[in-house]
Amino acid sequence: MQNNKDSNEAEAYQVRKLEITDKNKGFMELLQQLTVCDPVSDEEFQNRFEELKSCGDDHVICVIEDATSSKIIATGSVFIEKKFIRGCGKVGHIEDIVVDSSARGLQLGKKVVCFLADHARSNGCYKVILDCSDDNKAFYEKCGFKQKEIQMVKYFI
Amino acid sequence: MQNNKDSNEAEAYQVRKLEITDKNKGFMELLQQLTVCDPVSDEEFQNRFEELKSCGDDHVICVIEDATSSKIIATGSVFIEKKFIRGCGKVGHIEDIVVDSSARGLQLGKKVVCFLADHARSNGCYKVILDCSDDNKAFYEKCGFKQKEIQMVKYFI
Repeated sequence: MQNNKDSNEAEAYQVRKLEITDKNKGFMELLQQLTVCDPVSDEEFQNRFEELKSCGDDHVICVIEDATSSKIIATGSVFIEKKFIRGCGKVGHIEDIVVDSSARGLQLGKKVVCFLADHARSNGCYKVILDCSDDNKAFYEKCGFKQKEIQMVKYFI
Repeated sequence: MQNNKDSNEAEAYQVRKLEITDKNKGFMELLQQLTVCDPVSDEEFQNRFEELKSCGDDHVICVIEDATSSKIIATGSVFIEKKFIRGCGKVGHIEDIVVDSSARGLQLGKKVVCFLADHARSNGCYKVILDCSDDNKAFYEKCGFKQKEIQMVKYFI
């Protein structure tokens, strides 16, 4: 039955917040598909996890776990910047969106981005921003984003 | 004497961290030259100031005060994002750079950007990033930045 199938798929691809046990479910290997991501020790992972957790809703990392394989197959993060402009307004910054190469086409990226944007909105942000390559512009437009400025970078190492 | 003049100028345009009394020195009016910046009450200002102060080195707003007029004539901010990628690396995000229209040409913008980039570097960031308009690209190139990606935005209000 179509309804059961849809409901099973929805169940299989739920977005949730990162948990400390996700290190053993391929979270770091997934990030390696995004950029340079050296292995980190359990202690380093735990320390960073605790640091981020102490930020509460101001810095959230979400994941999608494949219920069948128990592997993390999508992730993204958002942190909330507190400003003085716009009546002491807040801005959500989305970072590090990645979907496992074997799980493309399932709209998981859109699910993650919507989850993070909703989080920013429900925490009082007046906008959410992100930086991406030209190649990914069309994807973010489908998520309701528009191009605004350019990103500049200065590397220290 | 040239040396005294230079030394006086350096004295007159020192970069320092935002202080709570800067609200009465034109800090909010300066931000109005950047974007929409509604007036905020002293209580709202103090609350936001304390929130940011509690972040310590992870979120710093700096200013330049004109020693003659006691007005804030330049500002900028940087916050440090903690990641899992790059061996639990950190990234500095520069925001809200503005120089008073009457103080252009004194290299104050560059001073502010260098202060914030140095802060990010000395706090262990592997890079510092910012978003700007095409019009400001040349200025940030003079500060050592290169264009990398594009910025996407989604407004909630």
